[in-house]
Formats: sequence, structure tokens, C-alpha cells
Amino acid sequence: MEFLVFMELTKTIEGGSKKEVVLREQERLRSRQLSEKGVLLRLWRVPGRRANWGIWNANSCDELHDAIVSLPLFHYMTITVHPLASHPNDPIPLYSGAGK
Amino acid sequence: MEFLVFMELTKTIEGGSKKEVVLREQERLRSRQLSEKGVLLRLWRVPGRRANWGIWNANSCDELHDAIVSLPLFHYMTITVHPLASHPNDPIPLYSGAGK
Amino acid sequence: MEFLVFMELTKTIEGGSKKEVVLREQERLRSRQLSEKGVLLRLWRVPGRRANWGIWNANSCDELHDAIVSLPLFHYMTITVHPLASHPNDPIPLYSGAGK
Amino acid sequence: MEFLVFMELTKTIEGGSKKEVVLREQERLRSRQLSEKGVLLRLWRVPGRRANWGIWNANSCDELHDAIVSLPLFHYMTITVHPLASHPNDPIPLYSGAGK
Amino acid sequence: MEFLVFMELTKTIEGGSKKEVVLREQERLRSRQLSEKGVLLRLWRVPGRRANWGIWNANSCDELHDAIVSLPLFHYMTITVHPLASHPNDPIPLYSGAGK
Amino acid sequence: MEFLVFMELTKTIEGGSKKEVVLREQERLRSRQLSEKGVLLRLWRVPGRRANWGIWNANSCDELHDAIVSLPLFHYMTITVHPLASHPNDPIPLYSGAGK
Amino acid sequence: MEFLVFMELTKTIEGGSKKEVVLREQERLRSRQLSEKGVLLRLWRVPGRRANWGIWNANSCDELHDAIVSLPLFHYMTITVHPLASHPNDPIPLYSGAGK
Amino acid sequence: MEFLVFMELTKTIEGGSKKEVVLREQERLRSRQLSEKGVLLRLWRVPGRRANWGIWNANSCDELHDAIVSLPLFHYMTITVHPLASHPNDPIPLYSGAGK
Amino acid sequence: MEFLVFMELTKTIEGGSKKEVVLREQERLRSRQLSEKGVLLRLWRVPGRRANWGIWNANSCDELHDAIVSLPLFHYMTITVHPLASHPNDPIPLYSGAGK
Amino acid sequence: MEFLVFMELTKTIEGGSKKEVVLREQERLRSRQLSEKGVLLRLWRVPGRRANWGIWNANSCDELHDAIVSLPLFHYMTITVHPLASHPNDPIPLYSGAGK
Repeated sequence: MEFLVFMELTKTIEGGSKKEVVLREQERLRSRQLSEKGVLLRLWRVPGRRANWGIWNANSCDELHDAIVSLPLFHYMTITVHPLASHPNDPIPLYSGAGK
Repeated sequence: MEFLVFMELTKTIEGGSKKEVVLREQERLRSRQLSEKGVLLRLWRVPGRRANWGIWNANSCDELHDAIVSLPLFHYMTITVHPLASHPNDPIPLYSGAGK
Repeated sequence: MEFLVFMELTKTIEGGSKKEVVLREQERLRSRQLSEKGVLLRLWRVPGRRANWGIWNANSCDELHDAIVSLPLFHYMTITVHPLASHPNDPIPLYSGAGK
Repeated sequence: MEFLVFMELTKTIEGGSKKEVVLREQERLRSRQLSEKGVLLRLWRVPGRRANWGIWNANSCDELHDAIVSLPLFHYMTITVHPLASHPNDPIPLYSGAGK
Repeated sequence: MEFLVFMELTKTIEGGSKKEVVLREQERLRSRQLSEKGVLLRLWRVPGRRANWGIWNANSCDELHDAIVSLPLFHYMTITVHPLASHPNDPIPLYSGAGK
Repeated sequence: MEFLVFMELTKTIEGGSKKEVVLREQERLRSRQLSEKGVLLRLWRVPGRRANWGIWNANSCDELHDAIVSLPLFHYMTITVHPLASHPNDPIPLYSGAGK
Repeated sequence: MEFLVFMELTKTIEGGSKKEVVLREQERLRSRQLSEKGVLLRLWRVPGRRANWGIWNANSCDELHDAIVSLPLFHYMTITVHPLASHPNDPIPLYSGAGK
Repeated sequence: MEFLVFMELTKTIEGGSKKEVVLREQERLRSRQLSEKGVLLRLWRVPGRRANWGIWNANSCDELHDAIVSLPLFHYMTITVHPLASHPNDPIPLYSGAGK
Repeated sequence: MEFLVFMELTKTIEGGSKKEVVLREQERLRSRQLSEKGVLLRLWRVPGRRANWGIWNANSCDELHDAIVSLPLFHYMTITVHPLASHPNDPIPLYSGAGK
Repeated sequence: MEFLVFMELTKTIEGGSKKEVVLREQERLRSRQLSEKGVLLRLWRVPGRRANWGIWNANSCDELHDAIVSLPLFHYMTITVHPLASHPNDPIPLYSGAGK
């Protein structure tokens, strides 16, 4: 099942920019892992904001929640999950098979 | 350039369900054309609503506007375009190359 | 998977109260079918409004969408689906097993 | 009487994660007590957020308020109570009898 | 139990002012009945609007819903019910005893 | 003249719970005084929140403002005053005479 | 007592522009009467909208409501009344004495 | 040109009440100066809030901005400027001539 | 003085597309006149919507209002005027001098 | 491609006014550079607020994001990017050629 997820960095990171650099590197690595597992399919920045839109893939909301909570920046972000159903006019799934 | 587009059928279609059936078929055909041109990349339904989220691809906002306005259901929908910038943690572009 | 669904009758039913009585009876029957299939688990009225909150159960958002669209009053309602993940402090699933 | 209650952790817990772990364990125990009393009937996580939806059961709003205020995390949460009336199409009460 | 209820006339009354005059007279009579039953305790106009705030009294949300739905103008109004719990600093109940 | 007033504790009380206990006791006493003067007529809690709805009585908005500002918790609250006009279907004034 | 009132023409005037011209002339005359009574003190247009902000003067919300309801365009407008209290830094009342 | 301006004290004043008393006295003096220049025409409190509505007069938005920024409490307030156009039914300008 | 103006076609044009074509041509001509007078400086479409953002130039809000109201599509649009003050970091005025 | 961008200083600058003065000077210099590159075309203040509207020019959302993030005040601001498409009634591009 695919989900559209909006994430925005809304809370101050105590420890300032140094800590943020560390967290961002951890976030990069964790995102890489989630991509390789086919959980994180696409990720875009919202221009001008510390926010992103992403297409995520999980077998249930529980799985999705666990994946999102595993992000190092989780505690600093406001996140909204938009559930998605398949559309008859959908061109092609993102990754043949993985999209279902 | 990729865009996230939300569309919802909010206006009444005069002519009732018969006309809606005709319009939906035209919408299906038009969506197919836009997919083949690589303009419409993905489309999902919002569960429980006559609305959809889509990933669109165009070289400019002008091109995107023209593509959206060409949809037979355009006049009956409320539409919001979310601009997207690429993200360093983006797993892979939708279509190698087309994503840029 | 369980979903929390809010539904409100926001559009005028052409044909006035006579048609509404017919539609409501069909809605009652369809709700009964969905209950027997274990899709509709609970349903409450919002006091003072023509709206309801419900707990629905489906294996995917596609299944949920199809169930909601099958409601006779679907075209007259504004509907919002809230995705749900299981909570470690959840007392007991609604129906032993069915809740998962 | 049943109520739909939304809770979100919106305030910072002074004392950081150590204190949060303690509070969460107390919250788990208190939730267990409320469940055993038939006050807390169901609890779901909102995927991606430190928030939950719950079905609560109390004889009055006073009773409900006292139960909610007794939660160890009460002071850190933003909470909304949605009143519920019974619906003729409601499949079956959560717990035979307790639901009324 | 007491409830705070907001009501606003938001839908057009087909049949224009003549029908509205008839409905308003029926509304007056029905309000009088509800007052005599101790269900409608207080009612104020929102200055400048076709809306009102009211204090209602019912043993459950079901009772409250039935009372509100019995208003002749029900189908033309948008209504919000605010649940109320008693407050330790509350001067005195509206009607000795009835307030509880 | 009567007013409907919504109050919510939204700002952190420096000095923590000890100071809050002191302030709450002062708030109780001040509320008692305002009740005896016929300024504060009714007060209810919003279940699940540190907020209340109240019916206040004053000869002008200036008088109302002075009464509200005199509350010890004033600086920690977000407050909205809803003006009220009398309604022809109002059952009875709260306190014979005082309501006008 | 002074009030800040926002009014916007939001409902369609059946009978189209001819009827609107008649109503506007009646509105002009009624406004003139209210000005002469010292009820309507100031009136400004919201640039680009069929809306206005006004400073009104009445001894109570009841009086204010009656004045507003007497406007020929009342049934076509959405109106919000903002209560006002006097401010110690207020330069001078609009009309010596009338402002209080 | 006249403007309707809403101001609310939304940010905490470091240095607590002592500093606030000093700032408020400076604000009073500055308001007096702006009144004498015919820039600040009227000022009302929002009952129950640390907020005000004001009618301001300036030859341009630049002039208005400079006047507002000169307020000692500027950095602690959230401010919204509503542009105003003259209305044919406006009784009389505030100050003969100055209103234009 | 410059203003940022948002306009959206939100009301149904009776007479359907034929009338809309006529109105749009009149709108084009009127826009051309306003441009030549230096009132309408820039105009952009909101991609995917029947809406536009524009930079307008007028000596007062009255002048701006009259210009906007002169648009043939005025009665079918929802319009918001954002007042603008000059910024020290503004690269260059649109039209040397005209920008002031 | 042109974009309409709204920016508001919403976060507290640690280090108070001294640091803000330094940051503002850096912001002025950076704005000057962006202007000279034809990226920042126009900039206006929102009267009464620490906010601005700007017209920006970039070949893609990525370019726009990088330009915005390069602003020294970026971390203290809440920013919204409004995508723009060209309008047939647009008088003239800002800078002949640069506007496209």
C-alpha cells in the first residue's frame, strides 16, 4: 500500500547546528536503508521550507508508523499521513509490483 | 520538473450521472494521453472522496497549467498545485531522466 | 486494518424528503451488509448533525474506498478517512482477530 | 455513553527522554486500569504522530474529564472530546451492554 | 448533563419568507415545549447573525440529538454541540438540581 | 448584558505546579467574588481540556474587560468573548432581572 | 457602546441586478437614518470586495442586532460583530460623548 | 487614507512585568504623539484580550509601516493591517478633511 | 502605491460558456486599458486554477477599488487585496518612478 | 520562471537585537547579489509586520530553493512559495526577457 506523507521540521533542535548536522547525516543513512527496503519510494523538498513530501510503501499503518518513527529527526517534525487508494487512470506503479 | 497536484470534484455536473459517465470516459482517455507524454506520472485516489493526488511532470508552470486545463473534468474540480524541489535523500527518480 | 471515518450529509438531495427516505432505507440495508462482512464495525451519530463517526475494517485503502463508495448516500456526503495504527495500550481489539 | 477522544503530545517534557520513559510506563499502567474499569474501550495511534484516537465510555462528561485528567501525560497533551450519540445502523456495541 | 449548542441558519428555505414565517412560529412553539420539559434552559441570539447560542440539558447525547432534530428549522441549520463538564467555581446551577 | 466567554490555559506558568496551586486558589476566591456580584453567572469545564465556557453579566464591555483582567490566571489564558443578544424563545433569564 | 462590524454580500440576490439596484438605494436611505440616530458612526469599503467595515454605536447588543437586521441587504450578507472596550490610549471619542 | 489595524500582544516580554510596565508607559506616550499628528485616530481594546483594534491615518503604506514600527511594543505584537476604501454611505469622516 | 491582489473565479456564470467567452474578451480589453494607464502592472495565473495574482498601482484604496470593480468578471470573483509597503532591499521599482 | 514568495520572521533570534542587526546587514548584501543575478526581481514589506512579498525568478524549483536557503535569515523565517504561470493579459514582463 502506498501513502503520501508530509513532514516539516517545526521544533528547535537543542544543541544547535552541530547536532543538526549529525542528525541530518543519520537521517540520510536511515533514508537510504528505507529506500533499499522499498519502504521510501520517492522524496521531494518543499521549496523554501524545511519540509518534504514523500511516497511511502508499507503493508499496514503499523509498519508505516514504525518506519517513520525510526527517522532520527522524528521528534523534531510535524508529520501528516495521507492514505492513498489506487486509481484506474494511474499510469504505472512506481516500481513494477512494489507499488501494490 | 515534478509537481504534486491535489484535485477534488466539488462542483455539480449539470446533466447528472449520464453526463458524468461520458466525462469520466473522456477523462480516462485524456489521462492516458498525458501519461504517454510523460506528463502524468502517478495518480492515486483519496479513499472515500471524489478526489485524487497526482505526480505531474512539466518543464514549466505554463506547461503544467495547460495540461491540467485540458482535463475534461477541469471546470468541476478544485485543484491545488504543490511545487516540488529535488531532495538529496530521494531514492530514485520515477523514470530515469524524466524525473529532472 | 481499522480506519476512523467521518461522514456528513452536505449536499442537497434532489427530490426532497421522499427520495431521502428511500435512500436512507437503502443505506440501512447496505450498512447491515457491510456489518455482516465485518467491514463496518461501529457507527455513532454526531449529536445535532446529519453526520457520523465510524470504525471501518479493510485489508487496504482500495477495499475501504470500494465499501464507502457503495453507500447509497455517498454522492451527498463529505467524507474524511483517518488512518489508524495499533496502540500498545489498546485494551482489546473490537472483534478478537478481526481488529488486526 | 461513548465519546471519541483525540489526544496529541504537543508540549515539551522537561527532563527529556528519561522522564518521558517514566511517564509512558505510568501512562501504560493507568490505561490498563481505565480499560479494566470499562472506561477506555479502544485506542489507536495516528500513524506518524505522537497522537491517538480513543473510544471512551463514561456516565457523564464529569466522569470522562476526571478519567482523562488522571492520565500522567495529561499536562503535555492537547485533547479534543467529540460527543457521540447512538446510530440506528450501528452494527453492535463494543462490549455487549457496556456500550450503552 | 448540560451542553452548549451553537445553531446557524445556513441553508436557503425554499418557499421564501412566507414559509420561513410559518417555520419560525412552529420553532417558537417547539422551543416553548422544550423549555417546559427543562431541556432548553437558555437561548441567546448572536448579534447581527441568524444564529444562536443555547444551554441545553439532557441525560445523554441521544436525548439531546432527538431534542435538536425535533426543531422545525433543523434541516436549514448548521449545528455544533459543545460538551460541558461541571466546574468547581461554577456559581450555582441554572435550576437547583436540574443543572446536574 | 450577558456574554459567552471561552477561556483556555495556553501559556506555561513559570514556577511550575506549586505556583499553579496558589494561582488556582486565588482564582477560586476571585470567581467567588465575581459570582456574588452577579458578574459571573455560570461556569463549565470543557471536558479533557484546561479550558472553560462561562456566562458573564456586565453593563458594558469595559466592565466585562475589567472583571476578566482581574482573574489571577488572566496572563496565562487565551480568551474569546462572544457578544449575546436576547432571543424571543429564551425560556427564562438566569436570575430573574439580573439576566437583563 | 461601540462595536466593530464586518459585513459581506455573500448570497445571490434573486431578481439579479435590477433588484440589487433597488435594494442598494433602500440600503443608502436606511444607512442615512441610522447615521442621523448616531447608531452608524463610520463605514468603509473593503477594497476589491462587496464588503464593509463599520463602527456602530448602541446601548446594548439587542439594540445593535435590531439596527443591523433593519438593513435591506441583511438577508444577503454574512456579518460578524466584534465587541469593543475603551482603550486608555484612545485619542478622542468619535463624537464627544456619543462614543461612550 | 484610513486603515483598520488589529494588534495583539503574543510574544513574551523578557524581563517580566517590570519591563512591561516601562514599555506600556512608553507606548502610552508614543500613542499620544501619533494621535496629535493625526496618525492614530481611534483605539479600542478587545474585551478579555491583550489586543486592540485601531483606525489609523497615513498617506501611504510606507508611512503607516513606519508609524506602527515606532511603537515600543512592536516586537511583541502580531499585527494585521486591513486596507479601507471610502464608502458612499459613510456618515462623516472622523476629522473633517483628515479622513481623506 | 503598489498592491498585491489575488482573484479567483468562484461563482457560476449564468449563461454558461458562451457568456464566459464574451466576458473574457471584455476582461482582456479592460485589462489592456488598465495596463496602459499604469494601474495593472503585472498579472500571473495560478497554475491549475481559474485564479490570478497581480501587482496593481493606485494612488489610494479608492482608486484601486474603482479599477477592480470595473473588471467585467468582478461579480463572479472572490478577491483579496494585500497592502504593500516599499522594502529597502527591493531591487528596482517596476517602472522607474511609477512604483512610488 | 517567476514565483511569488511570502516570508515572515517568526522565530526568535538568539543573541537578541545585536545579532539581528548583523544578520539584517548580511541579508541586505545577499539580496543585492540575488538582484544582480536577476533572481530577486521585486520585494515589498507587509505593512505592520516583519514579513515580505517578493517576485523571484529561477529556472527550476531547485534553483529557487537554493537561492532562498542562502538568505542569512532563512532559519528564522516561515516561507511559502506560490507557483506562477504566465497570463495572457499580463501587461509586460518585469524585465524584457528576464521575466520568462
